[in-house]
Amino acid sequence: MDACGYYNGEIAPLSELKIPALDRGVYFGDGVYEAVRVDNHRFFALEEHLNRLEHSLAFLRIPFSMPRETLISILLEVAGRVESTRQQLYFQVTRGTAPRTHGFPEEAEPNLLVFSREAPLKDVSVPKKVVVLPDIRWKYCNVKTLNLIPGVLAAQTAKERGCCEAVFHRDGVVTECSSANIFLLKDGVLQTAPANEHILPGVTRGHFLILARNRNIPVAEEAFTLEQAYGADELMITSTSVHGLPVCEMEGRRVGGKDPALLKRLQDAYREFYLGIVGRE
Amino acid sequence: MDACGYYNGEIAPLSELKIPALDRGVYFGDGVYEAVRVDNHRFFALEEHLNRLEHSLAFLRIPFSMPRETLISILLEVAGRVESTRQQLYFQVTRGTAPRTHGFPEEAEPNLLVFSREAPLKDVSVPKKVVVLPDIRWKYCNVKTLNLIPGVLAAQTAKERGCCEAVFHRDGVVTECSSANIFLLKDGVLQTAPANEHILPGVTRGHFLILARNRNIPVAEEAFTLEQAYGADELMITSTSVHGLPVCEMEGRRVGGKDPALLKRLQDAYREFYLGIVGRE
Repeated sequence: MDACGYYNGEIAPLSELKIPALDRGVYFGDGVYEAVRVDNHRFFALEEHLNRLEHSLAFLRIPFSMPRETLISILLEVAGRVESTRQQLYFQVTRGTAPRTHGFPEEAEPNLLVFSREAPLKDVSVPKKVVVLPDIRWKYCNVKTLNLIPGVLAAQTAKERGCCEAVFHRDGVVTECSSANIFLLKDGVLQTAPANEHILPGVTRGHFLILARNRNIPVAEEAFTLEQAYGADELMITSTSVHGLPVCEMEGRRVGGKDPALLKRLQDAYREFYLGIVGRE
Repeated sequence: MDACGYYNGEIAPLSELKIPALDRGVYFGDGVYEAVRVDNHRFFALEEHLNRLEHSLAFLRIPFSMPRETLISILLEVAGRVESTRQQLYFQVTRGTAPRTHGFPEEAEPNLLVFSREAPLKDVSVPKKVVVLPDIRWKYCNVKTLNLIPGVLAAQTAKERGCCEAVFHRDGVVTECSSANIFLLKDGVLQTAPANEHILPGVTRGHFLILARNRNIPVAEEAFTLEQAYGADELMITSTSVHGLPVCEMEGRRVGGKDPALLKRLQDAYREFYLGIVGRE
């Protein structure tokens, strides 16, 4: 099928899948999620996503006790029902189904929702524009929760201004994008905000840091300001489906374009690494 | 029935009601809500809740175009199916049902979920304990969205410590509680945080301010610190179902209890006002 959905043991075409109105995801957003690439029917970096899911579950104290092998077999089952060789698979765990009361329900079991559908990797050959917005989110942006209104509003603002992403800042210090991390290149150094409470520690972000270090490209996990971003040699966006997208314009000002060789070296390194795992066809 | 649910035209016992997995409420919490009292089968302050819903919808730019009369007739229908004379009715509007992409969907229609169930007013005759927690929420707490994880976590912490609520503060300045507003009484003055971006402008909060002014009780809409709260004559919590609950202990320290006469005067005023609308039986 084109898009397959799963909820607590039931499988259906995604557009037909239903869940209880009293799932706490529906009225509190009380859950966490992950999204993972499935290319050529192979999962990419699934273990890293599952490790991050565990961290998010622990932060919210959601007692999701499904063995990892069982969860993986469900994800395989859902992805296997979709024909496309270029999928993004999404899964979320909510605290359970119960009458609406803020405190945790006494007896509810966590709910697992999974879906997968065709979603090509984003083209990273053509630089794109971004907007800049204040980071209005809560304190723990390192936890991948379902409370995503700030990202929704920012993505829409970017779209309306013909941009692909919104760069968030707190008092002039860049954190990340609405659903991606951001790096800069300056004088041969690859720099991105440290993995603290202000950013989601992207799996792709982590890979880029490792690949750079392995190639003796100096790396700095230090926050940078908007001014530093405007003055960077290159700006580059990363996420699960965006493997190093260069930025050419930020709030209408030209940025980057001053070190295309190093940018391409990093993109190529990622591509090699990626294809080495999911295969070339 | 005991609890009735409604979703986009379908009515069912609440525990059986289902919604599409691709409702944007499910994976982004991309919606807003209201909760209103229905006592003796009469709605209390429904217009004020509907006005606030409109404000929340406008902030998130959700184009919910249902005429108010139609919405009210649906709320009446749902509440009318529940036998209890002491209900709390909940309704939420999400941006629509669509494949998961952060930006707004082009063609989706907003979804309306409604449910009502028995929920007595909280007893306000016995003072309760509260905990104090940092306010870790996003910037726009004046918008009543479905992104409620901070409130969920705080309510649970309060519950585990034998308390009824959590008092939030930003750098020592009190904002509100996890799902209620908070007032203090000091030297005959009723004080609460101003209705800015840091608090939800509670309907009950607004009523208490009006009732106090009508009785020539001085009112101050000015933020107070935790230190001021510890030194207050009384602390009092308000929400749709909590009509002036006194606080006797905050983080293990005794508070309030020094002006029970004024506290009771305010509680009684609210009770008279309330019963004047929903009736005494």
